[in-house]
Amino acid sequence: MTTTHINTNSIQDYMQTLGKQARAASRAMAKVDTATKNQALLAIATAIRREAPALRAANQLDLAAAKAAGMEVAMLDRLALSDRAIATMAEGLEQIARLSDPIGEISNMKYRPSGIQVGQMRVPLGVIGIIYEARPNVTVDAAGLCIKSGNATILRGGSEAINCNRALANLVKEGLRNAGLPEQAVQVVDTTDRAAVGALITMPEYVDVIVPRGGKGLIERLMREATVPMIKHLDGICHVYIDDKADLQKAVDIGFNAKCHRYGTCNTMETLLVAEAIAPQVLPLLAERYVTEKVELRCDQQAAQILHAYPHLAMAHETDWSTEYLAPILSVKIVADMAAAIEHINHFSSKHTESIITEDYSRAMAFLREVDSASVMVNASTRFADGFEYGLGAEIGISNDKLHARGPVGLEGLTSLKYVVFGHGEIRQ
Amino acid sequence: MTTTHINTNSIQDYMQTLGKQARAASRAMAKVDTATKNQALLAIATAIRREAPALRAANQLDLAAAKAAGMEVAMLDRLALSDRAIATMAEGLEQIARLSDPIGEISNMKYRPSGIQVGQMRVPLGVIGIIYEARPNVTVDAAGLCIKSGNATILRGGSEAINCNRALANLVKEGLRNAGLPEQAVQVVDTTDRAAVGALITMPEYVDVIVPRGGKGLIERLMREATVPMIKHLDGICHVYIDDKADLQKAVDIGFNAKCHRYGTCNTMETLLVAEAIAPQVLPLLAERYVTEKVELRCDQQAAQILHAYPHLAMAHETDWSTEYLAPILSVKIVADMAAAIEHINHFSSKHTESIITEDYSRAMAFLREVDSASVMVNASTRFADGFEYGLGAEIGISNDKLHARGPVGLEGLTSLKYVVFGHGEIRQ
Repeated sequence: MTTTHINTNSIQDYMQTLGKQARAASRAMAKVDTATKNQALLAIATAIRREAPALRAANQLDLAAAKAAGMEVAMLDRLALSDRAIATMAEGLEQIARLSDPIGEISNMKYRPSGIQVGQMRVPLGVIGIIYEARPNVTVDAAGLCIKSGNATILRGGSEAINCNRALANLVKEGLRNAGLPEQAVQVVDTTDRAAVGALITMPEYVDVIVPRGGKGLIERLMREATVPMIKHLDGICHVYIDDKADLQKAVDIGFNAKCHRYGTCNTMETLLVAEAIAPQVLPLLAERYVTEKVELRCDQQAAQILHAYPHLAMAHETDWSTEYLAPILSVKIVADMAAAIEHINHFSSKHTESIITEDYSRAMAFLREVDSASVMVNASTRFADGFEYGLGAEIGISNDKLHARGPVGLEGLTSLKYVVFGHGEIRQ
Repeated sequence: MTTTHINTNSIQDYMQTLGKQARAASRAMAKVDTATKNQALLAIATAIRREAPALRAANQLDLAAAKAAGMEVAMLDRLALSDRAIATMAEGLEQIARLSDPIGEISNMKYRPSGIQVGQMRVPLGVIGIIYEARPNVTVDAAGLCIKSGNATILRGGSEAINCNRALANLVKEGLRNAGLPEQAVQVVDTTDRAAVGALITMPEYVDVIVPRGGKGLIERLMREATVPMIKHLDGICHVYIDDKADLQKAVDIGFNAKCHRYGTCNTMETLLVAEAIAPQVLPLLAERYVTEKVELRCDQQAAQILHAYPHLAMAHETDWSTEYLAPILSVKIVADMAAAIEHINHFSSKHTESIITEDYSRAMAFLREVDSASVMVNASTRFADGFEYGLGAEIGISNDKLHARGPVGLEGLTSLKYVVFGHGEIRQ
């Protein structure tokens, strides 16, 4: 189909058709055995390796159009598909094939006084809608995770990647066919019209959950409009709290790593909280590390006094405590004690990841329990909050939500538990 | 406060105030230890027993007003608070006190190659909004479950029970005070204005999840308007499929029990599917049982031929397959085989509970896997789909949703898992 002349009514019809097809395919996918799903994944990987030149050509079309439209360099980098990136996509699928299949696992089967035996079976969610930016690797990654978890998926990538996504969609369909699976288990939305997103997030009859992967602006729009539930990730305002019972070396190592290992990631520390009693010792040591990376320190009054000689010092404003810098900038605040740190965190954090540095057992336990974030750590860098580091084997996204899944979401996050009952003719008395 | 002269703006403000107070109380509740929560539950039970006469008096006010307003008898029955019902409320709280505390449980702690140890901790959801009909016992039941699971709750019961709910709210607050817990952990919405519901379901900043307990009309309204996620129960169009490899006795016992044990419950069978090959044997046996209860059988063509002499026979219309009768009526359909039964179920069922009657191992396993409902059973009555029968110890509701919780929802459904990391100074390489 051509994509430029579709009006909004046709888009609605088109998306409804994708939805119906996805729902039908999801029923078939739910009962596919592990070997067949793995066969499809490996066949897609093979097709991607074989068609690397064609994929690069399609990507060149996208890149040329994006450059002409004035796309900024960082975005162009994510859109570009190198030979290395193509190989990584194929390896990613092979890795997903090696993961255990979560579907059909039965747990907690227990006999009840009535005689029935009750437990739970892990099952696919059904149809997953994934909305993401112009990053072709997400197309393959998301398709792979949905296939392995027995779901059907509708993929809506950034319009700047449309040529590459079309080419990838064909290879995914080839792999599904190869394994005897329905092609419509993975459908790439083949229009750049934004009305397609509006339709996708308002078809609860065909779509069971939306996983948005994109900037805060996209997510906030979806939150206003979606009637389909979402597994969503807003932002990462992560904190490290250095307790006065901290080991100084751990505090300095983690305080530096959590900020400077990578600036653009959501699990990067954005605010450092330091207990009053240890601040005069630890802040100068940390400053010696931060200065090597020219990190700007936005300090409260007390911290600024201690760090008055630091060359990249600024005063923190109230807005700093709720800003995700994604840059070599860190807000620094002195707090009276752990209770004050927890209060600050539960007020300002985006509930992503927080870490306490302490050698005190009771405080470590209290921090773990009382901080209301998806990941809470003791003596570890916030940068570990990641599906691969946690051993999930894969990651479809990170959730700031509380229902269903918190934190890194792997294959299991794309599944649900239903109750199963083994009876022997029991009736209710 | 008086409840009759509040305008919509004031209602918004009032609900915002409740929301803020609930959020603050939820932080305190999340860290309360098990013994203290149990102390509060037992203190509320004591207060309820002590104040039985006052509760009955408040209930009399509600009943008189409801009768004057022409409430129908079935509703009046649910509104009425007998001495027995009051004792049952108190016993319910004592039972909740005896359940294990789900909060703080840490599971699956595993060492990762980086050196960190990662697992998950069970934590409260935060603030639960519960919207229900004029049934005072739900006020106490829901308050008890939320207290035990470390959540704060805002309760909005049917306006016809307002006097009784106010009286109960005071006793709940007394119990919370007695244990040193914040009174605002349980707040009863003290206005009968319907705008309060609209406000409650659109404050995601203060309310983490809505649990509606009411008719389909209420739920459908909430689905259109809510911006807070819901754990919702729509309806129960439950199926029993009698396979041609069924044991006849089990088929007849379960077919009768699933329909006739109680008519008004959501786990009651509404459609009976029978394999063609066994229908001539099993349907006449079942008819002998159904006739004793004057069950109307709405049959497809084939079933009607077999049951032509049945005194309460009717022809099924297409709408019957998607009707929840909640009455001594059953739709009956002959299907070619299990595949046809599963197709019918996955199309018409409300994804609540379905049961297969068969002695065939492979079919039993396939039915369990392929039927996409919250509870799937083999050789057991659908009437077992219930939090108490499943051993959850309590039930806040039943979920037809796929995200978060499916089927009967107990204490665990009011909790979530966050990741916890025990480190030793690890940084990300």
